[in-house]
Amino acid sequence: MKDKLKVIKIGGNIIDETEKLQAFLKDLAHLKGPKILVHGGGKIATEISRKLGVESKMVEGRRVTSSDDLEVVTMVYAGLINKKVVASLQALGCNAVGMTGADGNSITAEKRPAKPVDYGFVGNVKNVNPDAIHTLLQDSITPVFCAITHDGKGQLFNTNADTIAAELAIGLSKLYETELIYCFEKAGVLEDVNDESSVIENIDTKKYQELKEHGQIHSGMLPKMENCFHALNHKVSRVKIGNTGMLKDEEEICTELTLF
Amino acid sequence: MKDKLKVIKIGGNIIDETEKLQAFLKDLAHLKGPKILVHGGGKIATEISRKLGVESKMVEGRRVTSSDDLEVVTMVYAGLINKKVVASLQALGCNAVGMTGADGNSITAEKRPAKPVDYGFVGNVKNVNPDAIHTLLQDSITPVFCAITHDGKGQLFNTNADTIAAELAIGLSKLYETELIYCFEKAGVLEDVNDESSVIENIDTKKYQELKEHGQIHSGMLPKMENCFHALNHKVSRVKIGNTGMLKDEEEICTELTLF
Repeated sequence: MKDKLKVIKIGGNIIDETEKLQAFLKDLAHLKGPKILVHGGGKIATEISRKLGVESKMVEGRRVTSSDDLEVVTMVYAGLINKKVVASLQALGCNAVGMTGADGNSITAEKRPAKPVDYGFVGNVKNVNPDAIHTLLQDSITPVFCAITHDGKGQLFNTNADTIAAELAIGLSKLYETELIYCFEKAGVLEDVNDESSVIENIDTKKYQELKEHGQIHSGMLPKMENCFHALNHKVSRVKIGNTGMLKDEEEICTELTLF
Repeated sequence: MKDKLKVIKIGGNIIDETEKLQAFLKDLAHLKGPKILVHGGGKIATEISRKLGVESKMVEGRRVTSSDDLEVVTMVYAGLINKKVVASLQALGCNAVGMTGADGNSITAEKRPAKPVDYGFVGNVKNVNPDAIHTLLQDSITPVFCAITHDGKGQLFNTNADTIAAELAIGLSKLYETELIYCFEKAGVLEDVNDESSVIENIDTKKYQELKEHGQIHSGMLPKMENCFHALNHKVSRVKIGNTGMLKDEEEICTELTLF
């Protein structure tokens, strides 16, 4: 039987608030068994870009990663945020190693096709190489990934953190029974976006179609849910979406995604 | 018999020039056997600080690391430079993992005493924990260290890269026969600073005293040499100073330090 592995992704809203982040990391440090943390970027990169005079270019409402932007996100995600998280985990007794996809050649990506829109240095994940990650996990070390990948030819890429979490859970499923956990600001996917108590406890593919048809899942949630079902379709055992309370209490209400 | 391990430090002048850096990394990638790279910072941190409006404070001719400076060096050293180096090594077929002292709890430090001068967030190395490094080396992965350490309580520190290289060579000497190699812009320690051909091929402690007494070793070289002899006094097998040619050719002229 394979060991269980949890891949936990936290969003920018947790990164942005020191107290929330510390509380989350405390829960993560107490979580038993092998685990991987994936963190998003938060607002710091935008602030640093502004201060450095790097202008964000938007195309059709989506941000384009210029080479200057890539330098900023590499600094902020892989440097500032990642190392603060790693140092905090060490202080909590959780041995961690901060990583990008380039480290250990763990996640290779290819530039997102330039047509119809050229998003610049944004990478679509091509392959997860579990070797270095597995070595660290076997040594009771928690890999902490930021949302940077590489193409294996020396080029770094900005990559969606939700996708990285899903691909890591898929890539590690050869060696572990993997569970993918998306922590965000809400208790789960809500039936009514204005009612925090309306958490849908289970969403299967049929329910997902219904929710989409009724327009109950709003824009940002759609790619996250696609990542969830993609993971379930590729040997990830469990996928959950909810707030950070999930780590502390298995009984905490959240949304579990299932295929049927 | 212990395996041999090379700890190679490159200075900021190599980091600053893309072509020099790529040539060096190519030689490093071809170097057989376990190795660790330690890199300095270069001028990029100063440039970013200036752009961000972070003012450098100097006390008695030495730079003080304010909390803003620490954020900049963490971004630039651990993010921008470290990940570019790692991605370049991957492209050259050398599997690498970028690290700070916080990663794998590898290098703990304590704040340099605030008296007589408070240098801010500068750490003196207290302990090297070889566990995670050894695990990576056993897996044929090259750890790439930037000059950031931590105190184990969540605080990161700016730390001299020469010192980090020496302490890593010392700390790993329990498990490996370690060689410490400082690569810099000259072919070695020069008898006459204006004559590149005046490399002193061997400096022992007696010769070192003479050079110091005659004022032939200038200011920046003194702490580097102290690190060298400190390493030799703490079980490091060989210590060499020279230019990057040393990696390619064992016969290349350089300065070797010895105790007697």
